[in-house]
Amino acid sequence: MEWSPVILTVTLNTALDLTYRVPRLDPDGSHQVREVVQRPGGKGLNVARVLAALGHRTVVTGFAGGLTGSELRELLAHERNITDELVPIEGSTRRTVGVVDESGGGSTQFNEPGPHISPEEWSAFQETYARLLRGARGDGHGDGDGAANGGSAGADAGVEAVALCGSLPPGVPVGAYAQLTREAHAAGVPVVLDTSGEPLRRGLAARPDLVKPNADELAGITGTTEPLRAARAAQRRGAHSVAASLGPEGMLLVTPDGMWQAGPPRSLTGNPTGAGDSAVAGLLSGLVEGLPWPDRLARAVALSAATVRAPVAGEFDEEVHADLLAQVTVEESSEPAPG
Amino acid sequence: MEWSPVILTVTLNTALDLTYRVPRLDPDGSHQVREVVQRPGGKGLNVARVLAALGHRTVVTGFAGGLTGSELRELLAHERNITDELVPIEGSTRRTVGVVDESGGGSTQFNEPGPHISPEEWSAFQETYARLLRGARGDGHGDGDGAANGGSAGADAGVEAVALCGSLPPGVPVGAYAQLTREAHAAGVPVVLDTSGEPLRRGLAARPDLVKPNADELAGITGTTEPLRAARAAQRRGAHSVAASLGPEGMLLVTPDGMWQAGPPRSLTGNPTGAGDSAVAGLLSGLVEGLPWPDRLARAVALSAATVRAPVAGEFDEEVHADLLAQVTVEESSEPAPG
Repeated sequence: MEWSPVILTVTLNTALDLTYRVPRLDPDGSHQVREVVQRPGGKGLNVARVLAALGHRTVVTGFAGGLTGSELRELLAHERNITDELVPIEGSTRRTVGVVDESGGGSTQFNEPGPHISPEEWSAFQETYARLLRGARGDGHGDGDGAANGGSAGADAGVEAVALCGSLPPGVPVGAYAQLTREAHAAGVPVVLDTSGEPLRRGLAARPDLVKPNADELAGITGTTEPLRAARAAQRRGAHSVAASLGPEGMLLVTPDGMWQAGPPRSLTGNPTGAGDSAVAGLLSGLVEGLPWPDRLARAVALSAATVRAPVAGEFDEEVHADLLAQVTVEESSEPAPG
Repeated sequence: MEWSPVILTVTLNTALDLTYRVPRLDPDGSHQVREVVQRPGGKGLNVARVLAALGHRTVVTGFAGGLTGSELRELLAHERNITDELVPIEGSTRRTVGVVDESGGGSTQFNEPGPHISPEEWSAFQETYARLLRGARGDGHGDGDGAANGGSAGADAGVEAVALCGSLPPGVPVGAYAQLTREAHAAGVPVVLDTSGEPLRRGLAARPDLVKPNADELAGITGTTEPLRAARAAQRRGAHSVAASLGPEGMLLVTPDGMWQAGPPRSLTGNPTGAGDSAVAGLLSGLVEGLPWPDRLARAVALSAATVRAPVAGEFDEEVHADLLAQVTVEESSEPAPG
């Protein structure tokens, strides 16, 4: 069988994302929703969708359960270039509701709590993850491990990179991302980690190749609000490289090879939902394509901005992306004097 | 087989009602939902739930489809005293999301649009409705009409009263409630109609026994904002009796036998979602129990107030209800001088 490279994204807290458009948000009022868009969500699934749009084959794993999980998987089956390796659970996948105010363009987000993951379900996930990584080394191809999804496309493909994305649902050990990072590295697969709080703090110790916190998340684990100092602190805690998203001001990238900063060409209004996930997809696709760091950063910033501008949360328009990419300016930063 | 009386409620635009509790509603912010409650919704299903809690056997019909419809029916199967006679459709049942702000107690409601009903689905509903009504006359008991739900409890029971509740989904003729009212009357079954706009205006012409508009709905079809004048106008258009809900001020009841007004004993804060449906259940249960008008009105006002006070939209606490019922004062009104 031909070896075909894929990117693996892990979403332990998947969600069915609903976007509601209302003429105007009126707190304490009643709203007739004009349009409902529903799509598979959770950061890793959003990353996969953007990667797929960029032409990368992607395998998604994590958990899905209940009727909301069925709805999510049904939608996922219609996505091109994405292979579903989600692990079934007893609990029900959560929903998120994003309410877009058409008068002002603002967006209000409601995230349901995730389902409880049992120890058996966590074990089943670990087996699936290991099977998918074995595909990367070309020694297993998913045979004979008894996993429910054995024999699907994902198991026959080499994994080029792993993205570990989002929050942990109740029941998953807080050190999960550290463990998954170590296993990927043991399989020779680079890891991008996009999470926050204690799961990020623990994950850093396993030396992920890249972390992509926003300024608040970075401050939360390093105790400093100045992005460059905080990125340096995250490196000292274990991250090889740090891409700190600075909201409308773009992104700061601190690597062993240098530091760069890039912003979108102009201030953009729109829906920031999914912008961070698009940035991860930009960085990840640049990694597997072997692009230089500044090009990865430019792609991340342009994709992120194109997502903010799109009418539906988490989507992006390819023309807008190409247009923005041409306008992003990347500036190399020099090391500041030690403070 | 023993003849066992039931109340039939019709909900053409059923919904899966989600209630989200958040610490504080922050427009344009992101909210971690603390608690999700989901229950079968749409006005007629809410009415049925309250009737069931009052000890009445209820049959519910209308439409359900898609995975959201499956979820709704699964929840409905756990409700005591309610028989599911919903008609399956190709489209997906809508969701509603009610966001409760725990800091202020306010509630913000988002209602998805309903699924499109095909002519074949509307015909299938009419067959089910006719079969359930035939049970009322005791001549058919649902035999041999080929309906998918034939033989269930609903078809073997006499229907004492019908409640026609809520909005019409796309595809259902705007004169639907007039037609359903005429068919019920032909079967000797009284009708309570709770809808608004054109479906209410058309429905009035079929002379429903009782309509329960709120002041806005009443003004919308009669052109007058003064509740008593508007109720009289609704009677002239065909309604035998009119129960006009006046929000926190209670309810005005205008009947051929007299007029009464009643308010809750004190101003109540809480979630008004479902309060109108509880009022319909109060009026309907009073009708089938043969209570005098003032007692029906008192029950409607007390149930409605108990619903506003309940922590979950559309639920009510029986003790609170009993306590409030004892405190509701009903005042008989005299006919005002013609204005």
